[in-house]
Formats: sequence, structure tokens, C-alpha cells
Amino acid sequence: MRKRIINLKNKIYFHSYGAVGGYEERRGPLGELFDFCDESDKFGQKTWELAEGEMSRLSLNFALSKGRLSHEEVDFLIAGDLQNQCVASSIGLSSFSIPFLGVYGACSTCTESLLIASLMLQSESLKIGAAITSSHNSAAERQFRTPIEYGGQRTKTAQWTATAAGAFILKKEPSAVMIDEVMVGKIISGETTDGSNMGGAMAFSAADTIISYFNESGAEARDFDLIITGDLGKVGSSILRDILAREKKGLERLHTDCGLLLYDDKKQDVHSGASGCGTSASVLATYFLPRLESGKLKNILFLSTGALMSPSSLLQGESIFGIAPLIKLSHNPKVQGDLSTIQH
Amino acid sequence: MRKRIINLKNKIYFHSYGAVGGYEERRGPLGELFDFCDESDKFGQKTWELAEGEMSRLSLNFALSKGRLSHEEVDFLIAGDLQNQCVASSIGLSSFSIPFLGVYGACSTCTESLLIASLMLQSESLKIGAAITSSHNSAAERQFRTPIEYGGQRTKTAQWTATAAGAFILKKEPSAVMIDEVMVGKIISGETTDGSNMGGAMAFSAADTIISYFNESGAEARDFDLIITGDLGKVGSSILRDILAREKKGLERLHTDCGLLLYDDKKQDVHSGASGCGTSASVLATYFLPRLESGKLKNILFLSTGALMSPSSLLQGESIFGIAPLIKLSHNPKVQGDLSTIQH
Repeated sequence: MRKRIINLKNKIYFHSYGAVGGYEERRGPLGELFDFCDESDKFGQKTWELAEGEMSRLSLNFALSKGRLSHEEVDFLIAGDLQNQCVASSIGLSSFSIPFLGVYGACSTCTESLLIASLMLQSESLKIGAAITSSHNSAAERQFRTPIEYGGQRTKTAQWTATAAGAFILKKEPSAVMIDEVMVGKIISGETTDGSNMGGAMAFSAADTIISYFNESGAEARDFDLIITGDLGKVGSSILRDILAREKKGLERLHTDCGLLLYDDKKQDVHSGASGCGTSASVLATYFLPRLESGKLKNILFLSTGALMSPSSLLQGESIFGIAPLIKLSHNPKVQGDLSTIQH
Repeated sequence: MRKRIINLKNKIYFHSYGAVGGYEERRGPLGELFDFCDESDKFGQKTWELAEGEMSRLSLNFALSKGRLSHEEVDFLIAGDLQNQCVASSIGLSSFSIPFLGVYGACSTCTESLLIASLMLQSESLKIGAAITSSHNSAAERQFRTPIEYGGQRTKTAQWTATAAGAFILKKEPSAVMIDEVMVGKIISGETTDGSNMGGAMAFSAADTIISYFNESGAEARDFDLIITGDLGKVGSSILRDILAREKKGLERLHTDCGLLLYDDKKQDVHSGASGCGTSASVLATYFLPRLESGKLKNILFLSTGALMSPSSLLQGESIFGIAPLIKLSHNPKVQGDLSTIQH
């Protein structure tokens, strides 16, 4: 059988990171942990699309300045977003003049880009890479569904696309947070054609990755503090926990989802939770990385989850496929708090 | 200064490859070199979008069977296309159940995916990877411009989006064709907002990569048989050659472009040449790899070229950016013709 877990010979470490958000993100429980939130969601730009590009640029800029790095020290960028042809990343990051690779993994982009960057850094000549992911509610809604001015009613299973971006700078020199294993996701049928239930469509791919990881590694639930998915929201999380419970390994008790953490669903009208690839990127940067840094969390599995479909494929009645790449993140007790000192 | 050339510690080799095309591709000068061309452009599917997915599937299937490999021996797929949210790749390749990474580099996707796959294969635990790229004329035209039934007039600078896909299986064991250096492209302004002149928009990024490569490596024109770009077409090729000529290194005399090779512009109404990311993928598979295999070509630089824009960014008046990742391909005289023997 094909082995799916990739053990990194050179462990990869977080050098620094940054996250920016918009109006709703500021009002959520993690609001104060963002480096910057823009009240207007416009980030000084004339279109929502350019605003998302500016979010990519700002998040990388925060990561560079918090890490006291010049853009010339970064060997490559690897980035993606939800806009057609990923223009938010390419326009937004053009000013850095850093060699660039675009990726598309729908909402799995944050983990996908960290995974590819970690593998690229196995090459001797590459020292420092950055992974950037963004999504913007207004740009995504008018592209995938209808412009928000249209006032379309959202179903209870629908999620709220995050206006958020996260940038992560990775290196080979030890820091307090390490990536030592990664696993590429498989394209798994979501068993649905409902574009308003992304969480449900992605739950099966998350289950495939998690179950494959535990079967192949022989790890047990007690080896991890948390298993974190990207944006399954309420519906998808409930499906995933049901599937994991059948495995009888207690994995479902470790599960949490970035889409359930970004907003306060009692105060914010987000229905089934957050979605959009900025969700897992910003929750990783604002919430999980600081906890891994301080040692509050020791070992986690982090899987952003993507729904592979397009507006055309939905209209044509095609099934939605899910994908869930995985990275294992650990606290490195040998180097403490070096990331915290450079955070404001 | 940042070094951009990445020297691969483990050289990467082509195991096998496959290419499929459509009606126009069959009638072009390379028509008989494709593994399969579909007269209807429909590949047995009910939509152009699904047809493109089927092209991805077929090209990988040809590469697997010509290489006598089972899908279970392939550690990962890395693929992209021009459809919104890259659904051709995700739907088309879903049936293989091979771990999957989506990339988006517009028409630079073929080189981008070969480049990332080569870097991923530097990891000990990964042995075999496949890179797949597709584009479909009818799917791309209705997405980026207008449905072909509309009969819109094309400008003289416009190019013909190829209905073509190429799949490449890479490994670490020596074969007759080797990748030993790669260089990630930079996002370079195309100095235009004209969506009907992609070649012109991409020429500057190709020039940036080529000039940077020769400056950094100290290589000279005589070290290479050819410098091959993806789909600059007539207009872009002419701009690139003018820029290269100013360098006074004779590089312009080595230049050829896949977009000038796929069709016969005297007999086929393709205006400025071929475009679409299937262009460089299929011309590499049908024309250049067999010549590298036999030793007719010894050393080439291969750069697919991408125009980073979306239909929305064009309507919003944004500039088009170009990008041009590079791989160096060499004939390996130690192992002769092993790829040829498995070609039909």
C-alpha cells in the first residue's frame, strides 16, 4: 500500500506569521488577536477583489516585520485564494518581487501551501519560504453565489466566508513551533451537489485523511492535544465526529474546527460557521500558533479542508469533491518563546 | 542578492508521459505525435468542462500505461488547468485515488507543476510523482471571453486556446531525460490591460527569468540547444527576442515557443499562435521530450509562461501580470532510449 505520511528529514519551523481580518472578524472571539482588522472590509482599495489582494500583502508584511526579515531574505512565496484565477494572490503579492508559486486547494489552501513549502525547504539551496492564504466575503459571495447587495437568503447549512488572510514564514533553523510530518489529501466525493453545504461536502475528505493518518502511523488519540479541521462548520463537524466515533479510537473528542472558532454564533449571524480559506489561515495565526509557541499545546494535527467545485460545475449539477491535506505541528521545548518576543 | 536557481541535489528523471488533444491539434504539425486526439473535442462528455477533466484523466492514463505503472505506485499528483477553481483537474483526476495537490499558474502551470514535483521528490519518502496540465478551447473561451457560438471577432494579437493535456511521471531513478535545475518565476507587470494580447503581457516575465538565469549561472548561449517558452505566440515572441537581443549574448537565436509549434498558421486560423496551459504541456510531451530522449537535443531551458489575470480583473481595468518558472532539461547519455521503448 502507498504510504501517505511524509516524514520531513529536515524539520521545518515557523519563523513568524501575520493575520489580518475585516469587520466581522474583529467582532469575533479572536478579534483582538489579529494584527490588523479593517472596519470597512475595503483595505483602502476600490474593489473587493483588490481589497483581498491588499490583505495578502498586509499579512505578509506583518509576518516579515514581526520576523525582522527583509523581503530579499525570502526565497519563495507560495500562495492562493478563492478568487477566479487566484488574482488576489498574484496582484496582492506582486510588489514584493519574491519568486512566486500559485496554488489552488479551495479552503484547503493554507495547509496545502504550508505542506508544499515544507517539502520545498527540504532542498539545500532554499532557506526561507512564505505561505500566504486569503479570502474575502464580498469578493467570494459575488463570485460563487450573488453580490451581497442582492440580499439572497442563506440556508441554515451555509457558512460565512471569512474576510481574512494569514501569512507564515517557514525556515529550517529551530524555533518554538515545528512541522515534522505532512500528508497530501485525496480527492474524495462529498456525496452532494449542494453549494450551500460546503462543510458537509468536505467532512468525508477530512475523515479519510485523519483515519489514514492514524492507521498508517499507529498513533493514538493520547498522542495529540487536538485534531483541527479548517472550515467544516457545524454540519460538517457533526458528520466528521460521527464518522470518527465509528473508529472507536476517541479521535472525535480531539476534534475542533477553525470555522467554529472565528465567530461567536450567538452574536454573529454566520449560520453554520466560518468558511473560506482565510478561516484556517487566520485561526492558525491568531489562536493555535501562539498556543503551540508557549507550550500550552504540544502536538496537533492541522487539516484545512477544501471543497473542489466552481460556480459552473455547480450549475452543471456536478458533485462537490472535498480534499484535506494535513500537517503535524509540535511545540519544540528546546527553543522557547522566540516567536512570542517578536509579536507585538 | 537572492539566488534564484535551485540546483537539485537528487536529479529528477522522466519515467513516462502522455498527451491528448482535440480537433485542431490533430490537424497541426504535431498531430500524429499525440497519444490520442478527439475529433469532437468532447471526449465523450456532456460539457466542455467535463471534457477537459477527461483529457487530464486520459493523459495520466497514457503516461501510466506507457510507463507500465499502477496508480498505486504514484505517490502524488500535482495538477492545474485554466477553469475557474481548477475543476478540470479535480474532477478529472478524482478516480485515481492518488494524493492530489492543485496548482494555479495560468499558462505556466506545466512548468510550475514539474518544478514543484521535482522539489517534492527531494524528500526521501517520495519516489514517484506525476504532473498534469490541461486546457480546453471551448471551456476557456466561454469562461474568459464569450461562448464560441457568439462568433466574436478575434484581434490579430489573440491566440487560440489549445484543447490539449499533458501528463508527466517523474522519478529519482535515472532515465534518458533529466531535470537538474529549476527556477521559480517572479510576478512581473505585463504593461498592458489587453486581454487579447496575452503573449505581449507574458514576454517581460519570460525575459526576467531567462536573463536572471544566465546572469546567475554564468552560462552562455552555446551551453543550450534551445530556450523554449510556453505560449508567447507571435507578438510575445517578437517582444521577448527584442529584449534578449539587447543583452548581446545571442540568446534570442536559441528561442522557440510552443505556441508557434502546435498549429500551422498558414492552414489554421489561430492568429498569433497557440495559448492555454495545454500548449506547453502537449508540445513538451509530443515534440521536445522525444528529442531529448534520443539525444537530438542535449540541453534546453523550458519556461511555460502564464498571464495572471481573471475575467473580473480585466473588466475592472487591472493590469495583467506575467510569470515564467523555468526548468532545465538534459539528455542523459548514460541511459538511452528507455522512454522510447515504452512509447507506442
